[in-house]
Amino acid sequence: MTTGTTAQPTAIENPYYTHEFHGDYDLISLGEFALEEGGVIPDLQLAVATFGTLNAAKDNAILVTTWYSGTHQIFRDVYIGPDHALNPERYFIVVVNQIGNGLSTSPHNASGANAGIAMSNFPHVRIGDDVRAQEQLLREHYGIDRLALVVGGSMGAQQTYEWMVRFPQKVRRAAPIAGTAQNTPHDFLYTQALVEAITSDPGFAGGNYRSNTEVEAGLKRHAGIWAVMGFSTEFWKQEVWRALEFESREAFMAGFLEPYFTAMDPNDLLCMAWKWQRGDVARHAGGDLAEALGRNESVARVIPINEDMFFPVRDHEAELELTPHATIRVVDDLLGHLALFGVAPTYMPQIDQYLQELLDSPA
Amino acid sequence: MTTGTTAQPTAIENPYYTHEFHGDYDLISLGEFALEEGGVIPDLQLAVATFGTLNAAKDNAILVTTWYSGTHQIFRDVYIGPDHALNPERYFIVVVNQIGNGLSTSPHNASGANAGIAMSNFPHVRIGDDVRAQEQLLREHYGIDRLALVVGGSMGAQQTYEWMVRFPQKVRRAAPIAGTAQNTPHDFLYTQALVEAITSDPGFAGGNYRSNTEVEAGLKRHAGIWAVMGFSTEFWKQEVWRALEFESREAFMAGFLEPYFTAMDPNDLLCMAWKWQRGDVARHAGGDLAEALGRNESVARVIPINEDMFFPVRDHEAELELTPHATIRVVDDLLGHLALFGVAPTYMPQIDQYLQELLDSPA
Repeated sequence: MTTGTTAQPTAIENPYYTHEFHGDYDLISLGEFALEEGGVIPDLQLAVATFGTLNAAKDNAILVTTWYSGTHQIFRDVYIGPDHALNPERYFIVVVNQIGNGLSTSPHNASGANAGIAMSNFPHVRIGDDVRAQEQLLREHYGIDRLALVVGGSMGAQQTYEWMVRFPQKVRRAAPIAGTAQNTPHDFLYTQALVEAITSDPGFAGGNYRSNTEVEAGLKRHAGIWAVMGFSTEFWKQEVWRALEFESREAFMAGFLEPYFTAMDPNDLLCMAWKWQRGDVARHAGGDLAEALGRNESVARVIPINEDMFFPVRDHEAELELTPHATIRVVDDLLGHLALFGVAPTYMPQIDQYLQELLDSPA
Repeated sequence: MTTGTTAQPTAIENPYYTHEFHGDYDLISLGEFALEEGGVIPDLQLAVATFGTLNAAKDNAILVTTWYSGTHQIFRDVYIGPDHALNPERYFIVVVNQIGNGLSTSPHNASGANAGIAMSNFPHVRIGDDVRAQEQLLREHYGIDRLALVVGGSMGAQQTYEWMVRFPQKVRRAAPIAGTAQNTPHDFLYTQALVEAITSDPGFAGGNYRSNTEVEAGLKRHAGIWAVMGFSTEFWKQEVWRALEFESREAFMAGFLEPYFTAMDPNDLLCMAWKWQRGDVARHAGGDLAEALGRNESVARVIPINEDMFFPVRDHEAELELTPHATIRVVDDLLGHLALFGVAPTYMPQIDQYLQELLDSPA
């Protein structure tokens, strides 16, 4: 909004981002939060879901970070439980929804003290902002100074690497899954195609639509591009979607991937996309990726997915060579990047094995 | 156009599809041509470029088929010459521009007898239509009954496979490069994303824009999706575009990939995309791909590109198993699918080796 005569954009309602869809979580205020790109969030609220109990020594805390379009919900439902490595009977597991994901402070929900940054006025946020906010939250709110494990997939892996480089003494173990420390040019272009699918929709109106439903066509095209890159070529060829009880590819798109994204807020997705495109720990070392990754002190497992089309295994391998104390474990899953949803029955056993192995190792 | 009161769409000028940009080619009329989907082209004109001389026995003819967005130009400039396997000193090489590619009869140039099928009125065309037209052209115009070789890349490979299955006795040798006999579901979705990048542009106006420049934004998004899938992840990471003397990724996009596509006609691209999505030789055998490919009598070299993201090697391998007399040769090229442009100095030597080996083999 650049003209003085235009009304200020205001926050809008979206039923997807509610307790009805996302269950229990707490909104924890960090107050005014200055962003790396120069903007300010007047009252940053982080949506946080916790599982298990923090022990007296405060050394059993695990931080889980979220991916693009994701929330704590997928971790609660798929990754966390007494039968998993992320076991709330042993650990205090803190899932922090990333800034802009629709539950934490985000463009579509910026109201009250944050009214001035609603919708198209929302400032640029970086992966580093999320990680600084998480560190502050853990320290001030829970008194946690050191984490038994930081783990996250995709953009969650970007945040994990940021922790490893930025707060090396606070991370005992780290497990970036299907994501890199420095976003690749190809990945930037992929995300750009996603961004443009949304912003090119006339209903987007420069970010000041009145409802996400006005941007439905753009969100569907965005889902269509995810269909091409988010799964593997073999996922489609072998019709793996039949395991989800759809009868056709079209029904899978219309019944799963399209509604998954059309429920979401376009500005929130764009806030995350901007961050994703610019994830780069080398910023902390004058552009020197080797120097940045060399700061890692945690015992790390780098966990790519073998069929991932935009965070391919070789991009993980290239960074692995620069990361001390890190080893690699490759997940075998035809779903590709979206294996992260944990749909394949063979997915979580692999993740649990790799995380358990890591949690059992001295650090 | 569904309302009686709306003016009929008419052909439009586009300077890209001229002799100035494409050099010498002949327009050869096949007259009225009935299409497999039920439509009719009142006067099908094929744009044909030939190199070399047909011998008296008429057994030295090579047919070259064209890919999506491609014309005879790339073959003339890169693939054909006395230093190449496609040697006009030995062979009579006939490059037939596919229907809808902007030089042969296409939506944007349908005028005169074809005025009724201009722009949004253009009928659906199938790979099989191209191949039947090519067979008729070769037989009626040149008296060629049997080809020493059929070769083409991408959609040109789809046409090559169609020749192998449909006219097995007319094909002595065949070389499908970077393309499959049966389009894959993933490839369909990829092409669909390309289609929607164009059709979602308000300037597209249901196909009845007055100039391709009115659809520039959509064509640029279409180029942006090609950037993600057309090259490999390593092409971007290793900045292979520097070899083309661009200084940045943005300059490469703005100076190469975007103008490559924005010069073209949207309806022409969509005509080709529809064909591409539905390429499938199994249609000739009641859906049985093995039975269809089993009809091949040619000596064939299947030539995938190792970094191809949408016609991956394994899709070629799966069809190879069903194709008698076929062997595989994999091209090593970081450019991915668009290695077909022949930019890497190591590309043509591989293609020449594989084609020469094939041409030298008895068939």
